[in-house]
Amino acid sequence: MSRNKTVAVVGATGAVGAEMIKVLERRQFPVGKLLPLASARSAGKTVTFRGETVTVQELTENSFEGVDIALFSAGAGISRKFAPFAVKAGAIVVDNSSEFRMNPDVPLIVPEINGGDVKCHKGILANPNCTTAITLMALYPLHKAFGVKRVIASSYQAVSGTGAQAIAELRQQVEDITAGRPVQPSVYPHQIAFNVLPHVDVFLDTGYTKEEMKMQNEARRIMHLPAFKASVTCVRVPVYRAHSISVNAEFERPVSVEEARKVLTGVPGLQLVDDPAQNRYPLPLYVAEKDDCQVGRIRLDCALENALAFWVAGDQLLKGAALNAVQIAELL
Amino acid sequence: MSRNKTVAVVGATGAVGAEMIKVLERRQFPVGKLLPLASARSAGKTVTFRGETVTVQELTENSFEGVDIALFSAGAGISRKFAPFAVKAGAIVVDNSSEFRMNPDVPLIVPEINGGDVKCHKGILANPNCTTAITLMALYPLHKAFGVKRVIASSYQAVSGTGAQAIAELRQQVEDITAGRPVQPSVYPHQIAFNVLPHVDVFLDTGYTKEEMKMQNEARRIMHLPAFKASVTCVRVPVYRAHSISVNAEFERPVSVEEARKVLTGVPGLQLVDDPAQNRYPLPLYVAEKDDCQVGRIRLDCALENALAFWVAGDQLLKGAALNAVQIAELL
Repeated sequence: MSRNKTVAVVGATGAVGAEMIKVLERRQFPVGKLLPLASARSAGKTVTFRGETVTVQELTENSFEGVDIALFSAGAGISRKFAPFAVKAGAIVVDNSSEFRMNPDVPLIVPEINGGDVKCHKGILANPNCTTAITLMALYPLHKAFGVKRVIASSYQAVSGTGAQAIAELRQQVEDITAGRPVQPSVYPHQIAFNVLPHVDVFLDTGYTKEEMKMQNEARRIMHLPAFKASVTCVRVPVYRAHSISVNAEFERPVSVEEARKVLTGVPGLQLVDDPAQNRYPLPLYVAEKDDCQVGRIRLDCALENALAFWVAGDQLLKGAALNAVQIAELL
Repeated sequence: MSRNKTVAVVGATGAVGAEMIKVLERRQFPVGKLLPLASARSAGKTVTFRGETVTVQELTENSFEGVDIALFSAGAGISRKFAPFAVKAGAIVVDNSSEFRMNPDVPLIVPEINGGDVKCHKGILANPNCTTAITLMALYPLHKAFGVKRVIASSYQAVSGTGAQAIAELRQQVEDITAGRPVQPSVYPHQIAFNVLPHVDVFLDTGYTKEEMKMQNEARRIMHLPAFKASVTCVRVPVYRAHSISVNAEFERPVSVEEARKVLTGVPGLQLVDDPAQNRYPLPLYVAEKDDCQVGRIRLDCALENALAFWVAGDQLLKGAALNAVQIAELL
């Protein structure tokens, strides 16, 4: 890739957008020009990139002239409306929203797993759901070794997954409670401080949420495994920025903890943190702001056959979003 | 039962002990004399019962003379050492610790499920693990209808389960973080504020914790179902006093959401709270200080056959401990 790419970040003032700009800088992505884009409301704000102040521009249909790569993270509606304009202008879009993830013309990529799929793109590539990406970082190596059949998972998702306003809402609620003031939920339907909400994304007629079905639907595409099944319960917890997932996975072939540990050792992007005797296991607080996901609490499942129970954690804004998106851009 | 029972509460200054005294009063248990007992360190403190101040006595081998019922909630070590003295003195012990739960001579009781087992007692009755009791409030009616085979569960357990010191630790950590002071974990091995810990109770050689195996072991006894299997991941979350459990349960017979809802409607001690369209589902914050457990998010499991996914929440100090113990005493 020649230097001096013009890179647009759509949603530059959001939690993921801000992280994308940091990741571009930290990984020395060959950015010639950074173009931070956001809604009219946020236009005029500034971001810092390589020590320089860059003014956020309003996102319009004409924003993408001369743009090589456009990283979108401003929700499915914005992607739906503006990604086609970016493609038309000649940019390659890496989209962090759910808009194109199930579109057969759009590769859905976790670089460590199916990086080769990028070559099939037609102008747009999709970044998977955060909980799915983090879970697959541990599940995929196990799948390669033992052949995964199905997964039961329950998540512990940080407020960063909802965005910058949710981070502020948790902080505000904690301050209000500490000061004895009443709590006014606004981003979430109920108080999130000192509570957990079994409600992430909108409900479907089946009773599952859209978020809960992403692991099955997206993992099938990413792992090239159309028969994969996953029953997931997604839960928002009062944690600021890393997700954790409790996973029970059933495999085609017999498994052992020893083999699983071997398989999960030295995997790029994944750390094995599994020494219960020393109180060492993945924790969202410690994995926050780290590129690598962590897996631990590995044990032989005592209710399913040929199955393992384990615990994965990963920074939702990094591997769950900004890092993975920039890694996709690096593959191009 | 004639009036004027002398009731000892062992661990009267702990989180569960304090709640036991409130429950005795609220349910108009026929207490003639209340005898609050605790360690030498806490002796001399006072508790309030029916508007009167009662002084906490030091627990000794001779504390139980004239006691009819002794409610123990001061940890397994204290139960092991002192319950035999209570029995010898003629008291009936209802023990909230894990000490006697797997002892075949000790009935393990959830009154709504196996209240009839109380008659087999030989002086000691055991109160089940809090997460198990709350889960079974929803699982047992489903078992009666469909025949449960196995369960995969992940818990979201409040700090109250660890005790009064843990409640204080969460509060202190939140204050320290808000004030920009460093956090000093002491009750838990890691910070609990804005974090989740996949670590409740001590680790076994299998990699499961003792807490995680309680659901399988205790549910087998309570449901009279020796082949029942449960793979559980127990996680501590920064919630003050109610537990939540994400459950995937596989049954012998075909299930439907409609039938499950019917089965779970009107069950004593359980409320069906399952209207996702109105953002209504069980929440630990709202179930706190309530006697009834709540079940919701009921859906047909999309990874297991003949299976349901659902979400249960219950006050850990009440149904998970003090209420259930007093309900057992009421059966006597």
